[in-house]
Amino acid sequence: MTNAATRILGLDPGLRRTGWGVVAVEGSRLRWIAHGVVAPPETAPFSQRLLFLLEAIGEVCAAHACDEAAIEEVFVNMNPASTLKLGHARAAVMLAPARHGLGVAEYSPNLIKKAVVGAGHADKTQIAFMVKRLLPSAGDVKADAADALAVAITHAQLRKRALLAGAA
Amino acid sequence: MTNAATRILGLDPGLRRTGWGVVAVEGSRLRWIAHGVVAPPETAPFSQRLLFLLEAIGEVCAAHACDEAAIEEVFVNMNPASTLKLGHARAAVMLAPARHGLGVAEYSPNLIKKAVVGAGHADKTQIAFMVKRLLPSAGDVKADAADALAVAITHAQLRKRALLAGAA
Repeated sequence: MTNAATRILGLDPGLRRTGWGVVAVEGSRLRWIAHGVVAPPETAPFSQRLLFLLEAIGEVCAAHACDEAAIEEVFVNMNPASTLKLGHARAAVMLAPARHGLGVAEYSPNLIKKAVVGAGHADKTQIAFMVKRLLPSAGDVKADAADALAVAITHAQLRKRALLAGAA
Repeated sequence: MTNAATRILGLDPGLRRTGWGVVAVEGSRLRWIAHGVVAPPETAPFSQRLLFLLEAIGEVCAAHACDEAAIEEVFVNMNPASTLKLGHARAAVMLAPARHGLGVAEYSPNLIKKAVVGAGHADKTQIAFMVKRLLPSAGDVKADAADALAVAITHAQLRKRALLAGAA
């Protein structure tokens, strides 16, 4: 770990499964640090499932000494009940880095696809393929974690622009 | 403050304004403790607004030594963007008591109306009227705080049933 590198936490929130990925960026050099998926106990009361997400992502944040965080903007085209659940999970997940004093940048799905694959209409398979290519040391990456790493990569590429615009 | 009384925090979440109210219940006796409204700075980044809600309600929870918390279930009939925002705010607000180790019970709008007014079709004016009547020492109560106190009153009445059912 070098002090000059900035560690970015990417997040792909979900009430059942939340993917996370950490990359280090130093100049234009990108390096994989870690990734994973956390899943709250399904039978726990709702507030406890949210608390599990807050605490699990908080532990990730601390364990990997993250400096900045990023998350996908939600594309609201699903049913209202799912939207509401995702909103809850996304807040719990965003609050973890916020509580550690980190800014949480938000990027649209199209911007993430463009940043990672080079095309706004890329599908999940292409994203996972490019994530593995950009971060060869990541090894096998499951879908939720690949999406989280894609958000982290996007922020690594766009953070200076985002910081200038005050969005991060 | 008597140790035998249970202090209940009622919550009416919103990203712009979140109402809260604390009541003490001892047997069938209900007593007003405090209420208020918190409003995150509107120009702050989204994650910071959520953090403001988490911390502000956390302070309320600690300041009034709350033992249990309750919140309204969301009635999903608004536009998806509003639903998503409310989901985020509601999670931040629920996480505050959860972090303090409190259970957070959830009640449907109709159940709250029935518990406070006696009829499931009551409007906001009737609820505010009954809240003032049940908690005369509360004084002037604004709408968001009245709804929060109504949730607290509902939990005071139904908590034994909720606790038995494992919902709180």
